[in-house]
Amino acid sequence: MEKYRVGILGATGAVGQRFMQLLESHPWFEVAEVVASERSAGKRYADAATWRLESALPKMARNLVVKDLQSTLACDFVFSGLDSSVAGAAEEAFARAGYPVISNSRNHRMDADVPLLIPEVNPEHAAILPQQQAARQYSTGFIATNPNCAVIGLSIALKPLEDAFGVSEVFVATMQAISGAGHSGVSAGAIHDNVIPYISGEEEKLEAEPQKILGRLDGQHFVPADFRVSAQCNRVAVLDGHMESVSVRLKRKTTVADVREALRNFTGEPQRLNLPSAPRHPITLQDERDRPQPRLDRNTDNGMTVVIGRIRPCPLAGFKFTVLSHNAIRGAAGAAILNAELLVAKGYLPRRTNAESELEKLLEASAQLRR
Amino acid sequence: MEKYRVGILGATGAVGQRFMQLLESHPWFEVAEVVASERSAGKRYADAATWRLESALPKMARNLVVKDLQSTLACDFVFSGLDSSVAGAAEEAFARAGYPVISNSRNHRMDADVPLLIPEVNPEHAAILPQQQAARQYSTGFIATNPNCAVIGLSIALKPLEDAFGVSEVFVATMQAISGAGHSGVSAGAIHDNVIPYISGEEEKLEAEPQKILGRLDGQHFVPADFRVSAQCNRVAVLDGHMESVSVRLKRKTTVADVREALRNFTGEPQRLNLPSAPRHPITLQDERDRPQPRLDRNTDNGMTVVIGRIRPCPLAGFKFTVLSHNAIRGAAGAAILNAELLVAKGYLPRRTNAESELEKLLEASAQLRR
Amino acid sequence: MEKYRVGILGATGAVGQRFMQLLESHPWFEVAEVVASERSAGKRYADAATWRLESALPKMARNLVVKDLQSTLACDFVFSGLDSSVAGAAEEAFARAGYPVISNSRNHRMDADVPLLIPEVNPEHAAILPQQQAARQYSTGFIATNPNCAVIGLSIALKPLEDAFGVSEVFVATMQAISGAGHSGVSAGAIHDNVIPYISGEEEKLEAEPQKILGRLDGQHFVPADFRVSAQCNRVAVLDGHMESVSVRLKRKTTVADVREALRNFTGEPQRLNLPSAPRHPITLQDERDRPQPRLDRNTDNGMTVVIGRIRPCPLAGFKFTVLSHNAIRGAAGAAILNAELLVAKGYLPRRTNAESELEKLLEASAQLRR
Amino acid sequence: MEKYRVGILGATGAVGQRFMQLLESHPWFEVAEVVASERSAGKRYADAATWRLESALPKMARNLVVKDLQSTLACDFVFSGLDSSVAGAAEEAFARAGYPVISNSRNHRMDADVPLLIPEVNPEHAAILPQQQAARQYSTGFIATNPNCAVIGLSIALKPLEDAFGVSEVFVATMQAISGAGHSGVSAGAIHDNVIPYISGEEEKLEAEPQKILGRLDGQHFVPADFRVSAQCNRVAVLDGHMESVSVRLKRKTTVADVREALRNFTGEPQRLNLPSAPRHPITLQDERDRPQPRLDRNTDNGMTVVIGRIRPCPLAGFKFTVLSHNAIRGAAGAAILNAELLVAKGYLPRRTNAESELEKLLEASAQLRR
Repeated sequence: MEKYRVGILGATGAVGQRFMQLLESHPWFEVAEVVASERSAGKRYADAATWRLESALPKMARNLVVKDLQSTLACDFVFSGLDSSVAGAAEEAFARAGYPVISNSRNHRMDADVPLLIPEVNPEHAAILPQQQAARQYSTGFIATNPNCAVIGLSIALKPLEDAFGVSEVFVATMQAISGAGHSGVSAGAIHDNVIPYISGEEEKLEAEPQKILGRLDGQHFVPADFRVSAQCNRVAVLDGHMESVSVRLKRKTTVADVREALRNFTGEPQRLNLPSAPRHPITLQDERDRPQPRLDRNTDNGMTVVIGRIRPCPLAGFKFTVLSHNAIRGAAGAAILNAELLVAKGYLPRRTNAESELEKLLEASAQLRR
Repeated sequence: MEKYRVGILGATGAVGQRFMQLLESHPWFEVAEVVASERSAGKRYADAATWRLESALPKMARNLVVKDLQSTLACDFVFSGLDSSVAGAAEEAFARAGYPVISNSRNHRMDADVPLLIPEVNPEHAAILPQQQAARQYSTGFIATNPNCAVIGLSIALKPLEDAFGVSEVFVATMQAISGAGHSGVSAGAIHDNVIPYISGEEEKLEAEPQKILGRLDGQHFVPADFRVSAQCNRVAVLDGHMESVSVRLKRKTTVADVREALRNFTGEPQRLNLPSAPRHPITLQDERDRPQPRLDRNTDNGMTVVIGRIRPCPLAGFKFTVLSHNAIRGAAGAAILNAELLVAKGYLPRRTNAESELEKLLEASAQLRR
Repeated sequence: MEKYRVGILGATGAVGQRFMQLLESHPWFEVAEVVASERSAGKRYADAATWRLESALPKMARNLVVKDLQSTLACDFVFSGLDSSVAGAAEEAFARAGYPVISNSRNHRMDADVPLLIPEVNPEHAAILPQQQAARQYSTGFIATNPNCAVIGLSIALKPLEDAFGVSEVFVATMQAISGAGHSGVSAGAIHDNVIPYISGEEEKLEAEPQKILGRLDGQHFVPADFRVSAQCNRVAVLDGHMESVSVRLKRKTTVADVREALRNFTGEPQRLNLPSAPRHPITLQDERDRPQPRLDRNTDNGMTVVIGRIRPCPLAGFKFTVLSHNAIRGAAGAAILNAELLVAKGYLPRRTNAESELEKLLEASAQLRR
Repeated sequence: MEKYRVGILGATGAVGQRFMQLLESHPWFEVAEVVASERSAGKRYADAATWRLESALPKMARNLVVKDLQSTLACDFVFSGLDSSVAGAAEEAFARAGYPVISNSRNHRMDADVPLLIPEVNPEHAAILPQQQAARQYSTGFIATNPNCAVIGLSIALKPLEDAFGVSEVFVATMQAISGAGHSGVSAGAIHDNVIPYISGEEEKLEAEPQKILGRLDGQHFVPADFRVSAQCNRVAVLDGHMESVSVRLKRKTTVADVREALRNFTGEPQRLNLPSAPRHPITLQDERDRPQPRLDRNTDNGMTVVIGRIRPCPLAGFKFTVLSHNAIRGAAGAAILNAELLVAKGYLPRRTNAESELEKLLEASAQLRR
């Protein structure tokens, strides 16, 4: 099969670099376009981006010429890792111009007609997309989002519990990695030998997004799940991997053993469809008493599984456990890629028929640029 | 006033070094004896201890000769920073030999006749001491303890809330500093770029000690407070300062403003008695939205105040906030010193009349040692 | 004595905050004016600065109103912690307007008529100031500078060796703290679990400034010392305290014992004059084999002494040792303050006679601002 | 080809775990025996070792039963990651018992008849092995060693310079990772926010081992290279990857461009023989001005290449540059494995003919153990 050509919005930022890394040898997608701020436009990607990942800058990316947000792109759809200061309008503009936008940005997550997707949790929410296109008068474009990096791990952990026992209350205290704030989001002087008990907007997201995700799509609109969440968010001096101390109150009486089994046996649509980026299990249990730990466990199953440990009774809420997910992979770029794979598999992502002719024009233009 | 001569049990360890540091120029106490393992016995303190604190090793301590746990000591009482593997029997032996033992170790904290003291919270619990002496047939000796380093901050935060509104449920997730585990308790390779979601025995202490502390002494025995605690303990890469994300459910309906006022106005016996190590306020509020932070706030008021911030509604339990306390000062050596000051002020700490003659004998013996 | 009123240029930055901290209870100087970028102008200092130091924001500073660089200041002289992007022109403007400028910025350090002062090393270089004033047609103003934060420790270490034995070659590899780059100079993601073997412009300064400092003032111009330096600069994950592995080749044959004695006995003008910020000794030797260490030794003598250890033979150059200095105190704000104290003691810093009347006008204006 | 069966001495330690990791799917070697202290003997490897690496404990290793140092092993040769406190005698005992010992320990490195091998640098030194066997009356056993973790990177960097220009003097200041000290070698409290300017014995090794490695084998004995090294060793808060700031004086005049070319074009026996663990190039140049960096570059080419950057003139010695090598892979377990591959390819590592029958006996015994 010929690969989908994809564009990366915000390609030089932290999330954008993860997209480049994870798509380097993706079986379905190849990066055809990179988009960033005007400052970077016109430069080779290798010159525009200060590459900050442990693996080398993918060869295919080196010579791509960065375009700005006003550009026409020769690609089938776009991933967005745009900063929230510009993502709102920019993603709408691309969707209106006919590009499906698979976004990691927060701006449209809670829109009434935008699915907030985790393929293992609520793949059926994608069915809102035709309504979105109709309501917004988009032709082939649309916007689909993935949750906040701290929400994804929690939501995956809650899903099998909601299905088996019903969730009524969730207390979560997070210890979040510095990469969650982007390349320059946290200064070394601020976090060194320190914990910062505040992340702007994060608690609000943790207290609202899970209900939309675990809710159901009732024809025209989303009905949120009826549990409540109390979140306290902390930044810690860890590079990657968000940790969460979670206490849950369940609706039906159960045992630690049954909670464990529900988590262990959880599987979802990406596993059934065998999507390229799907982890073997959405949840991996870690039985050692002092795990999960970010440095040791974040890369389990390529950073796409959620690692859960320390499942035990909570004297107040019923059960407590620790959740770890790789914020930059499962919680951001990898989440969006898995969403795109789901949308391809479900038939929501057609190729852009007119992309071919545009491509020719663009190749010519870009050839001129390089001279 | 002539100073009390004190002995430090476990003087070369992390807690022992803090005792030495905090007692360097104490107005009431002077270090007369240092006790450590047999390996160190007979050495000068400066040679036996690998000094690990930012301030210089106190001059008065350099030439003290380390004794072992079987020694007779020329001092009025002892502070114990012994490792829990030996503290149980050793502290009893010293108490039986007539020495008041002001201990930071966990072994006797939950004994039915041992006060678990925080001078601002339960100074009246000291009244159990005569009973302890009678029951255990101690003459002048006794054992008084301070709580676990993570419990102290929480208990001080809860006390004004219990008094004003009644506490019914407490959810606490901790982010604890590496110094809490002693000099070699955590290896660099274990905690670097990491969070460890487990500290042996810590959650049990957090779920049991506060009730004893906030309970009342009913003549012969302690009646624990009736709230319940759910704790999740994590180790983070911070040198000093335990952070706690706390949610509390109160018995009486109230407002954030009233919770804040209760915390802000809290004061206690050490403040009324103007004890030398008492902080101006047991609790210091930090109003900036991203505080308290361990590195910036742990040394407030010489590390003896508990810093609280982010007081806000909890959608589930009622209220949530962040608590910071310096684990090695307010949570350990400073706690024991404040306990000793309270016991002096309350008349529980007489000078040992026979200490003088022993002192002479000991000086002679030790003079021989140094030759 | 009535205190000098001082202004702080760049008062909200990392160096500016150190000035505020170190001047909180200075016996000679009090902060009367705070100057920062236009963005901060008109705000209270407490609102304009994100205070990042462990000690609390000085009370006296809270309500000072920040002025911009174009303002007239009611003060006797100014300290400059300005960013080098603006310091060049701004410092000249202030000097031309009659203000003595005691600067920590790099812009004018190597100017032919500007002294690059370390009071213990080259106090006599201040004698260039009248020439500077004459040549630049400054009236009461002038510019005096202190060296780069990594240069100060090295220069102080070299001075007694140059005097006693002559220095011919210096190899230095630095491990520099993150605070040396200012509040946001190093992102957490860049330095976490990492070493960065490059600091822009730093090696050039280390290879040129020491020769000016240890050179002599020959009437009209500076004659640099004739040794050569090879520097390699690295950034490490330490908050404060620059470490330097140094090898030196000396002109005269000597022994480790004599090198040690030369370093140990070194003293200078600030010690003789008993200046308020002078450390007891410019150099403090640390004899333990694994010292100095930044966290344990940087605050020795309030961060104003240079700590040297591991003095031993170098199989190639003759001698090698490790140098530590607190980059933000001895290497920046404290250096400038000690320079000002020297200039006061030497009579170079008169009070501004016209400041009084200006003060009145300014107080009125600022009173209006606050309404 | 049937795989060699190998034993790992010190299998539960930090180096031992790296052996297990790197041998998990090695094409020539499979781990047949794991040996550790008596405390671990008799346990399953999964129970005896506290696995500390990011990748999961290899499946093949889980159920291996740990033996003690006195055991007979059913394997063709052994890798030794033993602690130096026991390695000296133990490695000799195994060699005497007929096992080739490929050691990472320091004990025998400088023995006159033991090769100190880096396959790219001095593969011809292996020719000493028959002499060693004759002199020590070993039958099939022998001892071959790899250098200290900080020496390997430096020696590989020096080799092409020695060959092309002759090396006369080397100044090196290291910034070494915490994993170089083993799992518990550095406590978190010691290195947190700190640099430790001392590593026991390390400078001596850096000043002596390179000359043996870059020397030649003259029939019966090693003639060391005639350059001299001055080393200063520092421990920094980095997990893996030793950084070295190096200045070199060369015998023949040359240019930065030629030094760069010599480093870039360097290749060796492992590359020619295409050994399984050989990196594509022994040296990888990094051209960005702030590289190499441990976190970003240590895993280049699976951690087996030495990354060099910042090649520039040294005003004193001629040239300076920064060297990075992964201390736990290229500097330890990977070094030993590459040595074993070289010795196989060169015919020095025969299979033990009697291993088969021993194996049967051992399988029986171990079967009993597991009941």
